[in-house]
Amino acid sequence: MAAESTDLIYLDFNATTPILPEVLEVMLPYLRDDFGNPSSDHPKGTRARDGVEAARSQVASLIGASSSEIIFTSCATESSNLAIRGVAAARSQAARIVTSTIEHPASSQPCNALESAGWTVTRVAPRSSGLVHPDDVQPSLGPDVALVTLIHAHNEIGTIQPIGEIAQRAHAVGAVVHTDAAQSVGKIPVNVDALQVDLLTIAGHKLYAPKGVGALYVRRGTSVRPVLHGGGQEHGLRPGTENVAFIVALGRACELAGERLAAREYRVRLLRDELWQRLKAAIPDLELNGDAEHRLPNTLSVRFPKVSGSQLLAATDQLAASTGSACHSGEVRPPDVVMQLGVEAASALGTVRLSLGVPTSHEQIIRAAQALTSAWRRLVQ
Amino acid sequence: MAAESTDLIYLDFNATTPILPEVLEVMLPYLRDDFGNPSSDHPKGTRARDGVEAARSQVASLIGASSSEIIFTSCATESSNLAIRGVAAARSQAARIVTSTIEHPASSQPCNALESAGWTVTRVAPRSSGLVHPDDVQPSLGPDVALVTLIHAHNEIGTIQPIGEIAQRAHAVGAVVHTDAAQSVGKIPVNVDALQVDLLTIAGHKLYAPKGVGALYVRRGTSVRPVLHGGGQEHGLRPGTENVAFIVALGRACELAGERLAAREYRVRLLRDELWQRLKAAIPDLELNGDAEHRLPNTLSVRFPKVSGSQLLAATDQLAASTGSACHSGEVRPPDVVMQLGVEAASALGTVRLSLGVPTSHEQIIRAAQALTSAWRRLVQ
Repeated sequence: MAAESTDLIYLDFNATTPILPEVLEVMLPYLRDDFGNPSSDHPKGTRARDGVEAARSQVASLIGASSSEIIFTSCATESSNLAIRGVAAARSQAARIVTSTIEHPASSQPCNALESAGWTVTRVAPRSSGLVHPDDVQPSLGPDVALVTLIHAHNEIGTIQPIGEIAQRAHAVGAVVHTDAAQSVGKIPVNVDALQVDLLTIAGHKLYAPKGVGALYVRRGTSVRPVLHGGGQEHGLRPGTENVAFIVALGRACELAGERLAAREYRVRLLRDELWQRLKAAIPDLELNGDAEHRLPNTLSVRFPKVSGSQLLAATDQLAASTGSACHSGEVRPPDVVMQLGVEAASALGTVRLSLGVPTSHEQIIRAAQALTSAWRRLVQ
Repeated sequence: MAAESTDLIYLDFNATTPILPEVLEVMLPYLRDDFGNPSSDHPKGTRARDGVEAARSQVASLIGASSSEIIFTSCATESSNLAIRGVAAARSQAARIVTSTIEHPASSQPCNALESAGWTVTRVAPRSSGLVHPDDVQPSLGPDVALVTLIHAHNEIGTIQPIGEIAQRAHAVGAVVHTDAAQSVGKIPVNVDALQVDLLTIAGHKLYAPKGVGALYVRRGTSVRPVLHGGGQEHGLRPGTENVAFIVALGRACELAGERLAAREYRVRLLRDELWQRLKAAIPDLELNGDAEHRLPNTLSVRFPKVSGSQLLAATDQLAASTGSACHSGEVRPPDVVMQLGVEAASALGTVRLSLGVPTSHEQIIRAAQALTSAWRRLVQ
């Protein structure tokens, strides 16, 4: 392994997490001897099927659902497609969707596709804190609204939306409510009854399970049609031979998240806040993106003054983090969500997202603060 | 591990294969240190991206394609959905699809969904050999045909269809051609130019890679729209964070298949034919399903007289195999494909599919023949 990887301070857990050793351990037998197809009637099939069903129960338990309300998918993008387009497909005619202007493409793109197919999509803007206020959603709610879909915790800025309150108002007009909880499950308590949602997206690789597995919570009685067509797996909602090993991994990752959530949350918040304090002390004009309070405990999205996030990260080769900026035809554009908060483009370009995780150490936080500070000083000299 | 698993003779490789140790080996680093998101700009991302691109080249190489023509998916069902519904979505209006009556649900169900949406679907029946004859397809081909989709090798009976000849005729009327090669890739030579197809489905877990990964070959210039909407991964055709570990596994499995195909094919055919000879010698009324010659080398679908396949397998607890029968409301129905060959229901119910694989040993074949024979004798006594 190359040296850069050994020394790299990984602060990009919102992009993807490593697999915890405890998760890898329970998964490996299914990559070796227990390789059966869950649809098979013989013992190899039974063992695979049992693994899938145990995992279903573990996932359900983490979010306060019943096993029968969990559908396994290949990723959060597929889960959100199934939620949004599946609700639409179950309707006899086009209606309206209410969403926000700061959704992940896994939700915004299915909404765009439905819009092209004749649906109406109303997109509510966040306030400058990044919060989508229930009062700003209210005017969009009427009897023609079939679905409200909102991201629970934002992947870039970590802002946690008041889903429960919005869901209550949405239900009052008869709408189905979906939330993309890919970033929140495993980081903060997520309960489908507290959030009052009908559909909820889970991503394996954001909570220490592998890339290539996700789940969708579907509240009993919610009308949803499949978006992929084939065999009858997953209550007819998701065809294809099950990814048994990764489903088992997702189950275990959810179980661990449930057992360790409070400790993880406490620890990572302390480290995150120390990182903020150290950076702020060295760079007084540093700005925080989004709401300081209603925020994922692991996420620190900040704007460095007078530099772009890309320049800064390029100058700190010890650090793996992200800018949220996109490069189109050689031109760097600031993260869209930061622009949505009303920040000027020049300032928004300074954004760096530092997202912490279970393996993050105090020593890494000190080194990360030093590396970012010295790189920034070199650049602005 | 329970005794039944150690002693079990696994002859259900068409349902799913184990992962080869050489495949597991290359995959494990991506489940441990190399866990990056291929979309990330830092070294963790680069390493993941490099793994995906190397695998793309390995998959392409096995089927005579270019890397840029390979799209990774979560399973063969998703690949066939992308092919069939992706071609349909790229058309401005509904047209006609020509397919067969013996397709896997991964193809037949997307066709059914398009039929509900206004498309016309023409389903050609096989002859009694299981072969879909090009002359039987010909009358269905006209300028209104947008897509011809046919299974390359049948999952139940192993019959290999004359895709090349049918594709040539389909192209003559301007249709796009898709084949589901989930069962053939890795078992027999599969070359996209020899088959003259525009789209070809590959399943990881049928060729010693894991369940949870697939690929779709898309010939350069073929108009296809995504069926899932989200980020821009996989040339905009398949959103969602890539399942890096399983993609790497699929690449290695394809590489091994390419290196070892002739030897595998030769060996498994000998074992399969010996199994047939032993069973036929003991049970003279045993019948073969499908064409004896145009058939996967590993597949033996036979009809046992005077018993049902389910009864027989239940009486041989040493054997993991399948019947292809479906149980609906307590009533066992014979495999649909066998009925399509013109076999009477009572006889079709006696079907057992014995599918061999790389780990199958000569000793297992002798034991399997003995177990089936003695179980059959006990049942018909």
